[in-house]
Amino acid sequence: MSPSPYLVGLVGQGVGPSLTPALHMAEGRANGLDYVYRAIDLNAVGLAPDRIGEILTWARTLGFNALNITHPCKQLVIPHLDALDDDAAALGAVNTVVFEPHAGAQPSGEGHCDRTVGYNTDAPGFGRGFVEGLPGAVTTNVVLLGAGGAGAAVGHALLDLGAEHLTVVDLDVDRAVVLAEELAARHRDARVDASAFDKLSILLPHSDGVVHCTPTGMADHPGMPFDAALLHPGLWVADIVYRPLDTALLTAARRAGCRTLDGGYMAVHQASIAFELITGITPDTGRMSRHFRTLAEQSAMQTPLQRGM
Amino acid sequence: MSPSPYLVGLVGQGVGPSLTPALHMAEGRANGLDYVYRAIDLNAVGLAPDRIGEILTWARTLGFNALNITHPCKQLVIPHLDALDDDAAALGAVNTVVFEPHAGAQPSGEGHCDRTVGYNTDAPGFGRGFVEGLPGAVTTNVVLLGAGGAGAAVGHALLDLGAEHLTVVDLDVDRAVVLAEELAARHRDARVDASAFDKLSILLPHSDGVVHCTPTGMADHPGMPFDAALLHPGLWVADIVYRPLDTALLTAARRAGCRTLDGGYMAVHQASIAFELITGITPDTGRMSRHFRTLAEQSAMQTPLQRGM
Repeated sequence: MSPSPYLVGLVGQGVGPSLTPALHMAEGRANGLDYVYRAIDLNAVGLAPDRIGEILTWARTLGFNALNITHPCKQLVIPHLDALDDDAAALGAVNTVVFEPHAGAQPSGEGHCDRTVGYNTDAPGFGRGFVEGLPGAVTTNVVLLGAGGAGAAVGHALLDLGAEHLTVVDLDVDRAVVLAEELAARHRDARVDASAFDKLSILLPHSDGVVHCTPTGMADHPGMPFDAALLHPGLWVADIVYRPLDTALLTAARRAGCRTLDGGYMAVHQASIAFELITGITPDTGRMSRHFRTLAEQSAMQTPLQRGM
Repeated sequence: MSPSPYLVGLVGQGVGPSLTPALHMAEGRANGLDYVYRAIDLNAVGLAPDRIGEILTWARTLGFNALNITHPCKQLVIPHLDALDDDAAALGAVNTVVFEPHAGAQPSGEGHCDRTVGYNTDAPGFGRGFVEGLPGAVTTNVVLLGAGGAGAAVGHALLDLGAEHLTVVDLDVDRAVVLAEELAARHRDARVDASAFDKLSILLPHSDGVVHCTPTGMADHPGMPFDAALLHPGLWVADIVYRPLDTALLTAARRAGCRTLDGGYMAVHQASIAFELITGITPDTGRMSRHFRTLAEQSAMQTPLQRGM
């Protein structure tokens, strides 16, 4: 008999062009699995985000093993889950839901015996990607630019990795303050500040690194998130945007002599962690990374880029 | 890029042990496809059969390409479809629903641009299996035992194949009369009669063949559908029961010197036709048949047999 077939979906708005389905399916195939991964674009199917509970119920009923969840459902999904992992609970956001069979139940795809568990792979995905792509990077003074959901996950990951002083910067300084307080409360051995956007010119010359967590630089938000004159060779620059992989920020940073980390590292490690949560099989992350970069090149040539997981 | 991945389900009561999912997935794999086929057992997931319309809507929304439909939803599904093929319309029953993209739409799994078309592969499945498994069988006088949904499909198939005189027999003679009238109305060049069950002893000695279309002989309805003494070497005997493949009827028929056709032929050809409707790829029916017989042997050794598609 063949190993269990897997059925997974990605739920969110505008997920049609996401590379995640192809990435999971290729890794499934490489592991000898029947693995189908569907993009379920709420805009395309005409469902409001607050129907995420029904989507969960029906996905479970129809035999899905898991769903990845993205904008704008990462918070909305939480009341519909039976349990949360620590990262999801800390961030108040879920990007992976696994329908786990109860102990003793058959892994048959029958929905009645599962429980739904929410995970957040954003923080460990960034963390593993950072360690892989910027080995030895100094994290004494780090600037986090962007205090949204992605910024929160990256902030937790940086502090978990041992960052000593993290400064959260956002055009909305109140949002920066709220996130800095949350991060400080959970990482009491680190110093976490908030700062206004116009203080970047004072912060960056004295920082070891900056992580960019706003949409600027994505295909539909082109441009630089801050003045390239602030880049200097002592600063590493990480971008979580991965469509395109080569953002204006990273191009400018390389020109300024910075070490850089593109958004592909986080994307691949997120997918790798999700794959393991779903199948119990540790994937070959190097192979996933090579496949991701091939897909990203093809995608950049073929289609207008859009936001997606 | 890989070919399109396919996602298919089987909806009905008690379909958990069905061999159809494994049969489709193996043939998909042999064709290099990512192909996941889920059994959706209405009993296991706690859905009443009259919710088939919702099941269709959600399956389409979540990216299914098609559903096979079995007891007790084959009639209930019809009001929810956009179109029916000729066999489904004639039989008033659907066993395959394909979510077909409209012309010009992308085959992206997005549900909003599909239409749902109902097919019935029971009649052509029996017909092709009969031609393959009983080549040259005389169909001048044929008895059809069982006037339910399966009997209706087999009756149409036999008349399409050129049967000259078909006698429909059922313990419920009124049901036999109704089916005989329906069949006669659609096949005006043939003679179609109904007969009471106790007339089998008069009919069979003068018949060329008999097709058994009742549940008797299935694992949960063991036994002979009629007295083995009525079997004679001039009679071919076809059974549509396939769990087990070797029914008491077929064992007795072989002992009596009859040519026989087991239910596996119809099951494989149904699945083969459905596979082609779903993927557009003509499968290797010989390979499917070999795989089906391996699965049936494994299944007979492993699990208590149940009714299923």
